[in-house]
Amino acid sequence: MARAGGVTIPGVRNRQIVLASRPAGMPRETDFRLAETELPPPGPGEVLVRTLYLSVDPYMRGRMRDTPSYAEPVAIGGVMVGGTVGQVEASNAGEFKKGDIVEAYTGWQEFGVAPPGALRRIDPSIAPISTALGVLGMPGMTAYFGLLEIGRPQAGETVMVSGAAGAVGSLVGQIAKIQGCRAVGAAGSDAKVDWMTRELGFDAGFNYKTTPDYGAKLRELCPQGIDVYFDNTGGPLTDAVMRLINVRARVVVCGQISQYNQEEAGTGPRWFWQLIVKQARVEGFLVYQFKERSAEGLRQMAAWLREGRLQYREDVVEGLENAPRAFIGMLEGRNTGKQLVKVAEPA
Amino acid sequence: MARAGGVTIPGVRNRQIVLASRPAGMPRETDFRLAETELPPPGPGEVLVRTLYLSVDPYMRGRMRDTPSYAEPVAIGGVMVGGTVGQVEASNAGEFKKGDIVEAYTGWQEFGVAPPGALRRIDPSIAPISTALGVLGMPGMTAYFGLLEIGRPQAGETVMVSGAAGAVGSLVGQIAKIQGCRAVGAAGSDAKVDWMTRELGFDAGFNYKTTPDYGAKLRELCPQGIDVYFDNTGGPLTDAVMRLINVRARVVVCGQISQYNQEEAGTGPRWFWQLIVKQARVEGFLVYQFKERSAEGLRQMAAWLREGRLQYREDVVEGLENAPRAFIGMLEGRNTGKQLVKVAEPA
Repeated sequence: MARAGGVTIPGVRNRQIVLASRPAGMPRETDFRLAETELPPPGPGEVLVRTLYLSVDPYMRGRMRDTPSYAEPVAIGGVMVGGTVGQVEASNAGEFKKGDIVEAYTGWQEFGVAPPGALRRIDPSIAPISTALGVLGMPGMTAYFGLLEIGRPQAGETVMVSGAAGAVGSLVGQIAKIQGCRAVGAAGSDAKVDWMTRELGFDAGFNYKTTPDYGAKLRELCPQGIDVYFDNTGGPLTDAVMRLINVRARVVVCGQISQYNQEEAGTGPRWFWQLIVKQARVEGFLVYQFKERSAEGLRQMAAWLREGRLQYREDVVEGLENAPRAFIGMLEGRNTGKQLVKVAEPA
Repeated sequence: MARAGGVTIPGVRNRQIVLASRPAGMPRETDFRLAETELPPPGPGEVLVRTLYLSVDPYMRGRMRDTPSYAEPVAIGGVMVGGTVGQVEASNAGEFKKGDIVEAYTGWQEFGVAPPGALRRIDPSIAPISTALGVLGMPGMTAYFGLLEIGRPQAGETVMVSGAAGAVGSLVGQIAKIQGCRAVGAAGSDAKVDWMTRELGFDAGFNYKTTPDYGAKLRELCPQGIDVYFDNTGGPLTDAVMRLINVRARVVVCGQISQYNQEEAGTGPRWFWQLIVKQARVEGFLVYQFKERSAEGLRQMAAWLREGRLQYREDVVEGLENAPRAFIGMLEGRNTGKQLVKVAEPA
């Protein structure tokens, strides 16, 4: 029991999804385990948050691996990390009060404790609160800053997107259209391609799983070549795109989901000579680079949403216990738009 | 015979090195042929230039190939292209007069005709005229703009250079030192490494031909990792460097000489995931991109030369007929510093 400002906050029984084993290749449900623990009460200045939605994202596959990367791995037996939208259950911090809706990074569990600096207040009047994990959250900022700041598209240019029906890719194509570009996307089903081209406004798209010759298809759909490539997948599709980049092209490397389940970095064509010939740039980024500008990005994305210039789709699985299945499905490309897990209803 | 301003200019007997056949792999001397022709007199406004020095450069290997690239290939039977320093023999252009020393792009021949806009006047009082093909010419501008504008080194950073004893690489390391960086280079002989570290001021270097484990050597010589990699060679050395780049590293792709004699683009490790993890940038360039700023670059390089902050070495082969041998030797890495062919003495 903790005491702050005269308020006593109890601990809670907390269900969590923990990492049971490090997967080799595609994760299986048995690599995760449901655990139940007592969550101690929040300390001075801390906030207890009840998870409403949790996000499953491709980057989490990297956290399941214990090789060096840009962030620490999840320990065996540790709670899976990740972004959440939650409701303040109890607060020892003056900035937040019980009932507030917040974005947090409390992971795959029913409750989490965080300092107020790790929370972002969500205004439910702007958009459904789940969008704080999608179009108005990390994936939205990834699309916004990645395309505009790394890709720097100019009106009239062709922007090609892989993983184009995912949480990030579906926004990249729409932002490209807002910038006056031709937007072309690759996705893993005909239904996804229909959604992109009929509802999101992509100029063209193709199903990479049923297209035998990526080069021929890309030449057909990108007759002026490719000026900006926003890469979420890597692999043979990326190889085909790299052969068709224009002079002074920019390749934005956001994700390499086709490679995440490989135990070793794969081999492929060497691109450095092509980069000289095309005077082209390939740049990897993490959305974290732009965190000081997130207010700007969120404001612009919210404005485009309000104006009807951005659409989004959420793929929601119910129940904390189904988070592993949702995560694996996302890695397999079964989702369209942002994959979420709904853990509880708001009070 | 042509007439301009009352002056009659004769044509000349002209010896040329022409492309005899497209090489497979490393070029052989039999891929070239010495031809002798009558060079017609220069037309109105044109200038007749006698070649004093000609330059052999790695990019010329690409021009011997008839696959699409950033420039047209040399035709079979056509004169090998390339930069030259020459002396005006006769001029129908008011800007130039007989005896002027100029940089031109007249290729592997004793005489060439060019419009005045394709000539750059050389002031022999600044430095030996041959430097117009090296430190005060294309290789110098490649090093200057490539390192400073693409690599953007900051004081205290580590700059790694492949092909570090070549015309470009030897300047890159010295400019890195002027910028306050740690400069480390790889070259193909112990003598080259000695030259880099004892005379040019590189902090460290190694002979890539006798180093069994590039990764271990690079970790030893670059204990703070690699912030800027200036790549002239590509191949396994580059692979080792890519594993050791720092967060926000910049990889400047200038040349890929290890790959130029391959008939097909090779395969190697895929680097896109590493670029995400390191938030790093790989950018290819052609010095041509910076042609509007060449006066600035030449002024700065000349100032550094005058101040004794830049050193250069020239490897001079005598005689037009030996240009193929000089070119092949350069591709094999036999030169130290800038490889030139001396064709004639100035009048």
